Amino acid sequence: MTRTVYVNGEYLPETEASVSIFDRGFLFADAVYEVTSVLGGKLIDFDGHAVRLERSLNELGIESPISKEDLLEVHRNLVKENGIDEGLVYLQISRGADSDRDFVFPDTDKVKPTVVLFTQNKPGLAETVKPIKVISVEDIRWGRRDIKTVQLLYPSMGKMMAKAAGADDAWLVEDGFVTEGTSNNAYIVKGGKIITRALSNDILHGITRAAVLRFAREAQMEVEERNFTIEEAQEADEAFFTSASAFVMPVVEIDGVQLGDGQPGPVMTRLREIYLEESLKKAE
Amino acid sequence: MTRTVYVNGEYLPETEASVSIFDRGFLFADAVYEVTSVLGGKLIDFDGHAVRLERSLNELGIESPISKEDLLEVHRNLVKENGIDEGLVYLQISRGADSDRDFVFPDTDKVKPTVVLFTQNKPGLAETVKPIKVISVEDIRWGRRDIKTVQLLYPSMGKMMAKAAGADDAWLVEDGFVTEGTSNNAYIVKGGKIITRALSNDILHGITRAAVLRFAREAQMEVEERNFTIEEAQEADEAFFTSASAFVMPVVEIDGVQLGDGQPGPVMTRLREIYLEESLKKAE
Repeated sequence: MTRTVYVNGEYLPETEASVSIFDRGFLFADAVYEVTSVLGGKLIDFDGHAVRLERSLNELGIESPISKEDLLEVHRNLVKENGIDEGLVYLQISRGADSDRDFVFPDTDKVKPTVVLFTQNKPGLAETVKPIKVISVEDIRWGRRDIKTVQLLYPSMGKMMAKAAGADDAWLVEDGFVTEGTSNNAYIVKGGKIITRALSNDILHGITRAAVLRFAREAQMEVEERNFTIEEAQEADEAFFTSASAFVMPVVEIDGVQLGDGQPGPVMTRLREIYLEESLKKAE
Repeated sequence: MTRTVYVNGEYLPETEASVSIFDRGFLFADAVYEVTSVLGGKLIDFDGHAVRLERSLNELGIESPISKEDLLEVHRNLVKENGIDEGLVYLQISRGADSDRDFVFPDTDKVKPTVVLFTQNKPGLAETVKPIKVISVEDIRWGRRDIKTVQLLYPSMGKMMAKAAGADDAWLVEDGFVTEGTSNNAYIVKGGKIITRALSNDILHGITRAAVLRFAREAQMEVEERNFTIEEAQEADEAFFTSASAFVMPVVEIDGVQLGDGQPGPVMTRLREIYLEESLKKAE
């Protein structure tokens, strides 16, 4: 079945959807993206993603080519058109296709940003809880991980390193401390306390992270935002990660060391329940 | 005038040249590139670029989709077709367009790499000697700069920072030492000695750098490969950069400090002469 995708105002069959070879997303990785989950045909925290998108664009000096309202409409159209009950909507905005290749940004009155959206169908998304094994790898990404750019080669390589090691994902380590997972935020739980790295340019400001920490605090759970090491994580009671597409997911093994009894822990399980429940209430 | 470009075996008008929105070059910056200069209608050091391309592809586990001989032919065809006397040929190879977005690399028997080439016409390229002003900016790029990937957003931002500061380019500084320019290798000259950072994962292994250092040694010039600071550079007799598209170019101001009399120095001038003379002999 051929998906309908969106490229610069047009709805197209995925097989016909393309961008110019001069698109700066292709030549310079000069593009940002967002991934919004769909549950019951509705968008989870669209507003959070729209706000972060705006921030990413601002940081790079890309003028937003589409209003939040229009973006929401495109999301909804694609979800409907492709019959997505559970799945994702991927959105990418690049600085656009200049008339030639040049490191210097093109004039914004001459070159308009490129907007691409497509869906991914993921039946069973809300029900899927997969205990994850991670390995640690050195974090050699660029220094502005708070901007959600498509410079994703190293996260991709990290996933391949994990796969080669018989694991599911990699946790990235810089100066001895875990920054985050390849495409998610990392947490440990010790003595009932939820520990996760504080926000900075070193990590993505996860939309799911913000919601989960808010729900945790509302449920009177203790949250500590600070650095932790792989060794501390291996000695934790639980570990988990959050992302827009996996929500809250248990990590049960770190560099070959099993955590507790190797089963999803109670804190993670409770947080996932609260997150899904609360997010679905506001889904749009 | 519309250029003829090359995309996956086809010669096309540039206005019709595109890649799938699922191309990993667009979604993950999972692509490498090379830029080869053209002088007198001939390719400068094609062999050096082909060897480095092969190395970049190997480092990322991308199987080369085109032989060196075929690649040379495409370069020559584009130079001829577009009537390039002086200019560039840009080549990019991505891991290809998978059927969907996934961090995990696709199977190499299912997805073939994308090959894109286009020319840029630059009349007067060999004659152009522009005294360059640079500013220093922190080097926050990823840790594998020896692989020539399209993760070029920060170099692009660096050029914009330079422009905003009234300069031409930025020299990147990490842990107090200059790594390289945004798209070139950096050098200083003190007491007749040519000083440039040694090869490592921290910098691009410049094809022009290798040739220039070889020619310098053959001409009995002293070369020292070691780290240097911005302060040392500001006190140098000369500074310059090398790149495939600018050859050898004088740097006459660093962070507002003029070097010597602000004119291109004798060492740089001699190196540029030798480089152009020797490279043209072997051009193909």
